[in-house]
Amino acid sequence: MIEYRNLRVALLGGGSVGAQVARLLLEQRDELAGRVGASLELVGIAVRDVNAERTVDLPKELFTTDAESLILGADVVIELMGGIEPARSYILLAINSGADVVTANKALLAEHGAELFAAADQVGAQLNYEAAVAGAIPILRPLRESLAGDRVVRILGIVNGTTNYILDRMDEAGDSLEEALASATALGYAEADPTADVGGYDAAQKAAILASLAFHTTVPLESVYREGITSVTPAQIESARKAGYVVKLLAICERFTDEHGVDGVSARVYPAMVPRSHPLAAVHGANNAVFVEAEAAGSLMFYGAGAGGVETASAVLGDLVSLARRHVAGGPGVAASSHAELPVFDIGSVMTRYAVTLEVTDEPGVLAEVASVFSDHHVSLALVEQSMTPAVAKTVSRAAVSATATLVIGTHDATEAALAATVRDLAANRFVTTVASVLRVEGV
Amino acid sequence: MIEYRNLRVALLGGGSVGAQVARLLLEQRDELAGRVGASLELVGIAVRDVNAERTVDLPKELFTTDAESLILGADVVIELMGGIEPARSYILLAINSGADVVTANKALLAEHGAELFAAADQVGAQLNYEAAVAGAIPILRPLRESLAGDRVVRILGIVNGTTNYILDRMDEAGDSLEEALASATALGYAEADPTADVGGYDAAQKAAILASLAFHTTVPLESVYREGITSVTPAQIESARKAGYVVKLLAICERFTDEHGVDGVSARVYPAMVPRSHPLAAVHGANNAVFVEAEAAGSLMFYGAGAGGVETASAVLGDLVSLARRHVAGGPGVAASSHAELPVFDIGSVMTRYAVTLEVTDEPGVLAEVASVFSDHHVSLALVEQSMTPAVAKTVSRAAVSATATLVIGTHDATEAALAATVRDLAANRFVTTVASVLRVEGV
Repeated sequence: MIEYRNLRVALLGGGSVGAQVARLLLEQRDELAGRVGASLELVGIAVRDVNAERTVDLPKELFTTDAESLILGADVVIELMGGIEPARSYILLAINSGADVVTANKALLAEHGAELFAAADQVGAQLNYEAAVAGAIPILRPLRESLAGDRVVRILGIVNGTTNYILDRMDEAGDSLEEALASATALGYAEADPTADVGGYDAAQKAAILASLAFHTTVPLESVYREGITSVTPAQIESARKAGYVVKLLAICERFTDEHGVDGVSARVYPAMVPRSHPLAAVHGANNAVFVEAEAAGSLMFYGAGAGGVETASAVLGDLVSLARRHVAGGPGVAASSHAELPVFDIGSVMTRYAVTLEVTDEPGVLAEVASVFSDHHVSLALVEQSMTPAVAKTVSRAAVSATATLVIGTHDATEAALAATVRDLAANRFVTTVASVLRVEGV
Repeated sequence: MIEYRNLRVALLGGGSVGAQVARLLLEQRDELAGRVGASLELVGIAVRDVNAERTVDLPKELFTTDAESLILGADVVIELMGGIEPARSYILLAINSGADVVTANKALLAEHGAELFAAADQVGAQLNYEAAVAGAIPILRPLRESLAGDRVVRILGIVNGTTNYILDRMDEAGDSLEEALASATALGYAEADPTADVGGYDAAQKAAILASLAFHTTVPLESVYREGITSVTPAQIESARKAGYVVKLLAICERFTDEHGVDGVSARVYPAMVPRSHPLAAVHGANNAVFVEAEAAGSLMFYGAGAGGVETASAVLGDLVSLARRHVAGGPGVAASSHAELPVFDIGSVMTRYAVTLEVTDEPGVLAEVASVFSDHHVSLALVEQSMTPAVAKTVSRAAVSATATLVIGTHDATEAALAATVRDLAANRFVTTVASVLRVEGV
């Protein structure tokens, strides 16, 4: 029997992820000790109410409401409470009292990451957070380590399982947004208040974390452009399907040089059309996937469960083992990357392609006029498709029916600013009845 | 201007990967220094012929034929020569002279991995080899670190791009094996002698490395069961397609308890039918993907380019940066996992499903008799489909035409041993004209 030294592990939070982490730590104690070279002793679980119902049966004596004492007696603190405070204060307390930290708190990292990383750097503490993005999928460690010798160019991520489930239902079952959301709620994928998911806020937090890590810079949450899926219609999804595309809510992180020669980054979240042949198009249900384009490695994709208590617990334990191994090896933590402070571009500078659907009156010269609106703003066209809209309304006399047509226009790369100006002019154009849909196109 | 300490990097091999590693080291020198906290100085490239043509323009003075002197003056040695000797001796020399090592040499690791890891452990040297499996795809580090707190149950890997390209062509374009191989050769995917790829030898090396890492044990290359794709026919692929499957060459690593209650592992390579809805079915062309099932994390997939000079160079540089960061942090390398020495099961103990296609005479009682052959060996049936084979040959008289039928039989999980005995008996059965195809079914 090998005698291992002991690492004292404190857990903050006993919810669905916390309870699974505790269970796995207790059940796999011997196996983990062998992998780490030290015993990982769970010394306590700080919760608000020690008598609350738990999803997992755990020894009563582990629970405490005294988080601070628990932290002060620990070598490693695992923060799974969520929210900003007191999570932020507890993590700072842990770092400053010499503990290493594992957290899955995306909201906290997106808003106060820079402060926490600086605090950890100052004392040489380790701060791991793999579980904060895309649940069980190992994406942060590959970005930080495996691609450390490469240059990441672009990330396209499906990082919110709830919205992917909803869009997938709309695409596969023809559900409306409301029906798909109801089904997501029934399955436990969506929370009672689904705003964080459907509004793209959750994805925006993850985009900020991914962009900061991938580009070795700081991308504040407030500089992440965000659109949710609430305006996505079945008609858009149907029209995308006909054209060979699927609509996905994407978190996009990109590094590029803008028209003024400035090197910077962009982080943004919006629903976009993705070609059905793209690997991201095959990500169904509540799964997550992160597609990474790097200069040397080319295209990579990381796929798996984006949420779930036990799945996320796997990522937390991976962080814990990794950090504990370094703890055992001695010496300071691994040197942090030097950070460039790259400018974060406004959405107006971002270049992408668009699919614009217009209802127009069916008269000679319409197409030429519409095309000239695009060219006025230097937006060049890749594709134009015209289809008749069936003339309607029995009660309207023949003479009163002015025939309308639907125009679907695909653009080449254009800036958001140029496209927005184009759409403004189109809406005011005498031939255009309605700008029915504007969707970005990614992954082509 | 920050003054960094210098890490002396020696490169062994100047082929397609080596030349790209050298180029990236030189071009990204400042960027890499920032990320590592030390300057990575390429001190030389050992090659057989300093005057040979290179794919990349590199400074002449870097090249040398004196590998040993280069190794003795280096802090880090990158071995990209391939083959067993002198690569093995050079890596041992590097380790024993105090250098850390990065290698992409799958053949060497599959055959002599245990020896090299032991030598590295003894002196506390780091030995990284991400590029040895699935090229640019970060798979080894996620397995070793991200999933270190989880239990891997099964790995299904498409780890050979050449054979995936060939099978994909056969599936998508209806090519014969010979046509698809010719096309792979023309595109540079297949070597002049394609045996290592189409015979499954390359995939078997990767299976040995993956299984050893995933199950924290030693899986010798000679215990990997191996079948290549040379016997895969267009008829099998067509029949799989009709049933909703695609044929892929899989490297399968599995941990299970056999019928005698023994806990052990299996590593095997063979062509198998995969449902079209499985994420691996969407891996086209020469791409690679590794599908991992873990107890807590559930299903994960890692996808990307499996080969290519610059793509593989990305993985090598990732290893280099990771190792250099620890070098800078000081202290010994990270403690190695304790290794279980699990038994490696023979292919006979492996349980999987099968699709068996039989040509039978079309007589009453055939189905009952065929079914009884399966049940004699305790192989239970999931599905039976019968279709008439069009009776042939104009010159044969009516009376002489004995009508034949095709039976496609899908089994439930059965051991290879039971299935082999079943197939033997089927081949000898009076009703069975031919056992046309036996294919395993995975991923269901």
